[in-house]
Amino acid sequence: MDSHERQFDKELGDLKKKLIRMAAIAETMIDRTISELVNREEKLAEPVPGYEEELNRLQIEIDEAAMTLLATHQPVAVDLRFIVAATKINSDLERIGDLVVNITQNVHTLLEQPPIKPLIDIPRMADLAREMVHDALDAFVRGDVALAQSVIMTDDQVDALKEQVLRELLTYMMADPKTIERALALILISRHLERIGDHATNIAEDVILMIQARDVRHPRTPRERPSQEP
Amino acid sequence: MDSHERQFDKELGDLKKKLIRMAAIAETMIDRTISELVNREEKLAEPVPGYEEELNRLQIEIDEAAMTLLATHQPVAVDLRFIVAATKINSDLERIGDLVVNITQNVHTLLEQPPIKPLIDIPRMADLAREMVHDALDAFVRGDVALAQSVIMTDDQVDALKEQVLRELLTYMMADPKTIERALALILISRHLERIGDHATNIAEDVILMIQARDVRHPRTPRERPSQEP
Repeated sequence: MDSHERQFDKELGDLKKKLIRMAAIAETMIDRTISELVNREEKLAEPVPGYEEELNRLQIEIDEAAMTLLATHQPVAVDLRFIVAATKINSDLERIGDLVVNITQNVHTLLEQPPIKPLIDIPRMADLAREMVHDALDAFVRGDVALAQSVIMTDDQVDALKEQVLRELLTYMMADPKTIERALALILISRHLERIGDHATNIAEDVILMIQARDVRHPRTPRERPSQEP
Repeated sequence: MDSHERQFDKELGDLKKKLIRMAAIAETMIDRTISELVNREEKLAEPVPGYEEELNRLQIEIDEAAMTLLATHQPVAVDLRFIVAATKINSDLERIGDLVVNITQNVHTLLEQPPIKPLIDIPRMADLAREMVHDALDAFVRGDVALAQSVIMTDDQVDALKEQVLRELLTYMMADPKTIERALALILISRHLERIGDHATNIAEDVILMIQARDVRHPRTPRERPSQEP
């Protein structure tokens, strides 16, 4: 391996590390916000400060590093696909951060009033979404097609939970109009979590595409995407 | 200009045409779905058949064409940035298509019952979102920074309309629980339109980044993004 190759491998390794860091931040953000909701921690003040800025900064750094890698080393085949995938995946991770900020705003609304019900499905959705983000990135850095496929499968569970949340909360709203604002905040949280799952699915699809160099995003056997809405 | 350069320019031109085609399809989908909602056209059956498939197909074609361009011509500087931007923008356009499909499902729910109110803000949001998509792509192919900036400015109007829709519909829901399901469907439509505006904003930000080769996505003077949620 010559020094040019070593330099390329080093820069590629840095790119991977930055993406893993983005995913770790996104996972922490999800965890923290949902535990604030579940444990009703009134200290909640800011929408997960610092994390979102770091996601934004890493997104830009990854784009710039990818441009430099492409321009300097002119990679082909799997390396080329890896780098282009990195510039798509960083956008997904940055938008996951935005979605968590939206969730936090809804959590804030909810903590101002008493709970309307114990939360079960929403924490479950959050766990699944967080695992999907983690596994999608793991699949990316390890080149693991089977893991990427399992992420895509999990998305159906998230969608099913979203439907369940909606049906249950509609019942609450209709039975007692005083719950409307809180029920709506919970419905919107479930939507944001579902979209986090969608972003993880996008990442998993990009991983499979990158490895197999064929496109799995729109297979002939139809999957239920975009998910059914009321 | 040698034949290699001519070939490169031709392939780059094809890439632009495909992206413009994607944007045109997305605009048509938005128009069609919202006019079905406003005019209460009961014929509505499918979520804009054909269009979504074509968006999916074009997204894949653009990714493949971009990989080929990068591997074959090893472009640098502005051409490199243009091609990488194309592989991000096609994802935004494809997801806009997904969002319109979600809107159509909500429209379907709404057409099964009498209207709760004349619609003013939602068609206005749809017009703005559609214009943003159009202008963002126009800015991309023409390299027009000012136009891209105007797209980003328009996003604030879309966000303000979304808030207005929410406030108004909450009032309806609380006054008459029989309106809850329909009001919720309208709220979700406004959310989807807002997200279409966000995707157009992402495209506009990529355009400015591509042209100025500096990142405008996360400026120091804070813009209100992600938008405020209830």
